[in-house]
Amino acid sequence: MQITGVERADIPSIKTSKKDRENQDLRVIDERVKTIVETIKQEGESAVFQYIKELDQAELDSLFVSEEEIGRAFQSVSDEMVNILEEAKDNIESYHRLQKEQSWYEHQKQGIWLGQQVTPIERVGVYVPGGKAAYPSTVLMNILPAKVAGVKDIVVTTPAGQDGSVNPMTIVAARIAGATQILKVGGAHGIATLAYGTENLKPVDKITGPGNAYVARAKKYVFGDVGIDMIAGPSEVCILADDTANPEYVAADLLAQAEHDELASAILVTTSHEIAIQTQLEVDRQLEERKRKQILQQSIQHQSAIYVVSDLDVGFELINELAPEHLELMVENPFERLGSVQNAGAIFLGDYSPEPLGDYWAGPNHTLPTNGTAKFSSPLGVYDFMKKASVIYYDREALSQVEQNIQRFAEEEGLDGHAASIRKRFE
Amino acid sequence: MQITGVERADIPSIKTSKKDRENQDLRVIDERVKTIVETIKQEGESAVFQYIKELDQAELDSLFVSEEEIGRAFQSVSDEMVNILEEAKDNIESYHRLQKEQSWYEHQKQGIWLGQQVTPIERVGVYVPGGKAAYPSTVLMNILPAKVAGVKDIVVTTPAGQDGSVNPMTIVAARIAGATQILKVGGAHGIATLAYGTENLKPVDKITGPGNAYVARAKKYVFGDVGIDMIAGPSEVCILADDTANPEYVAADLLAQAEHDELASAILVTTSHEIAIQTQLEVDRQLEERKRKQILQQSIQHQSAIYVVSDLDVGFELINELAPEHLELMVENPFERLGSVQNAGAIFLGDYSPEPLGDYWAGPNHTLPTNGTAKFSSPLGVYDFMKKASVIYYDREALSQVEQNIQRFAEEEGLDGHAASIRKRFE
Repeated sequence: MQITGVERADIPSIKTSKKDRENQDLRVIDERVKTIVETIKQEGESAVFQYIKELDQAELDSLFVSEEEIGRAFQSVSDEMVNILEEAKDNIESYHRLQKEQSWYEHQKQGIWLGQQVTPIERVGVYVPGGKAAYPSTVLMNILPAKVAGVKDIVVTTPAGQDGSVNPMTIVAARIAGATQILKVGGAHGIATLAYGTENLKPVDKITGPGNAYVARAKKYVFGDVGIDMIAGPSEVCILADDTANPEYVAADLLAQAEHDELASAILVTTSHEIAIQTQLEVDRQLEERKRKQILQQSIQHQSAIYVVSDLDVGFELINELAPEHLELMVENPFERLGSVQNAGAIFLGDYSPEPLGDYWAGPNHTLPTNGTAKFSSPLGVYDFMKKASVIYYDREALSQVEQNIQRFAEEEGLDGHAASIRKRFE
Repeated sequence: MQITGVERADIPSIKTSKKDRENQDLRVIDERVKTIVETIKQEGESAVFQYIKELDQAELDSLFVSEEEIGRAFQSVSDEMVNILEEAKDNIESYHRLQKEQSWYEHQKQGIWLGQQVTPIERVGVYVPGGKAAYPSTVLMNILPAKVAGVKDIVVTTPAGQDGSVNPMTIVAARIAGATQILKVGGAHGIATLAYGTENLKPVDKITGPGNAYVARAKKYVFGDVGIDMIAGPSEVCILADDTANPEYVAADLLAQAEHDELASAILVTTSHEIAIQTQLEVDRQLEERKRKQILQQSIQHQSAIYVVSDLDVGFELINELAPEHLELMVENPFERLGSVQNAGAIFLGDYSPEPLGDYWAGPNHTLPTNGTAKFSSPLGVYDFMKKASVIYYDREALSQVEQNIQRFAEEEGLDGHAASIRKRFE
């Protein structure tokens, strides 16, 4: 890892170079996505089966995972893993329950009642990537906030293998979290199926969950007809360390982040030149012990860096400019510095709150804004599965006191029908 | 207006036909938008001046409205309108303050501290359409939630006329609401200027506000680099009326909505055939008295309808499927039926809460989800100008109790670096 000294003036250029890592021409993918989505929208279930045959080389009898398959999945997963999933579920639910908003109202003046009505979205789709590895943590993190919000129908979709089977760990996690249906459709055709439904499936109102470029572009394509969560980029961690930090832990946490994929980014910002050098050595040493060594070498060499700053204030300035997905504060008294964090997805405090604790266990969501979007967006949460409506009530007396002002305002904007709607009540 | 009887079975088809009214080929606009945005991103201020010259036929000395221009604007607007704007501002602020979320934390178990830190977005851009009519209500409704959220910099942008001047009413409303800067750049070039900044303007983190097709597509194009609010479609009202409703008021409110533009939609759902017929007659009668008659004829004839339903339950089912931007409940005891509303942007109760009361005065935001998107999205609010970060703290003892489970979970997902990051703490 390269060590660079950073002065205040360098900060914007670091940010610019970081943003460019995702640029690629998506036009070919977009054309393909459009064809797939529009075909399924027009032709329904037969087109879905056709795409599964063509793209996933699978011949399915049904798009749905059956109760029998669910039973078999539970038999094939160890009791130990089921218990771990159940315990993680309890932690995730417990945290997310605190996010749940209530409807409220007020009547500051006689005859006036104003409110905000908060209701769950009715039907939600959750995309779960397939392939050899299963990510049950992602299944829990997407379904449970919807469950806590009170969403009635939660439809999971995930690609089946060529033999028509779905990863048992995905099925078990989905069932434990409370999915109401599990579909065997991956890729852009999975997103289209959720968004527009088929003869045997009602469309959903919103789709969340990660996926490859086809899934991401398909989500962007259907956005507007349904809601979507943010489109996640490669994962990132930023560690802010002073001279009290332990370089072994710092290095281990940088590598944990970097192992996600070649584009993952791990950045250390430190006030201590000594910590910078020790971390650099530890990264090289620990990297040799890791299984995903090739990925690590790519992401450490090309996407990662160590920045040495003159003091913590410059460190926080740099962090707020980067707006990292994960931020670890390995500084003395990290609670006292929480107020200096403006932009980050999740903040981990001290030596015993490493980022994987948040990925799997603590309770807050691990779906977080990447690539600087923490400047304007939030972790996936219960609030993503509920929506608000304003409520307005005036009685005759209350409206009569302000009717002239409203009419004057409407006329100023050239909307005489608006003025007439008020005036009509008092003619 | 046509009167149609609706059975439960017809509801989905009504929704489908409604959704199609926005389809148009946007490819030409998108190509143009891409060129404009990328040019400004590369070349900065000189390109902005160039586009203003080319597209707005204006020669500007500066992109910013000066303090002197602001002074002149206040001189040209009547004291009466300033007072009305101030009073509306108080109502809007008062409602939106109730939306403001606080940071929170909990420690359910010894040694564990979990929180949610809520902070304002730092810089926000607000687009305000230009042209002959000024919409000061939209200026207030976009700026004030950001102000209440605690956003530090609020940059308004709006097109200048060929003489380089900006509508004084827009300037006055922006200043009253608390804009920190006013830019004279409209269209896609305005959005690009906000998103990427210039030599003399720091980029913003999020952009809100309505605009024409170029503005809307430019917002979609820059989304990801900055946040955006929803892309609004044509305005809509849905009125649910029983036999206690007053057809004169119903007709006036349908026309108020329909006058926005030719694509605006005004729908009455009623349990009473008598009310349906009386409203139909009243619409024809009142339409003759309105100034925007040509627009009204288009939107009433092509985008509007009266549906007669067998009972209120079917009425609510239809409404929840339509998910209207504005919903007026002109039924006996409307408060008692609030719980039947699942999907709507804003709900107006009773005879003396017509929709224009919400557009200008009552306090809740008038920027609302259109075209069925109330199924998954909310009115513009303070929550759109703040973002959340999760906070996680475990002490050594707390982490030691769960370290085995976390490692097991990480290994299940094939991420041995995640497991090592935990293990390292206890070696």
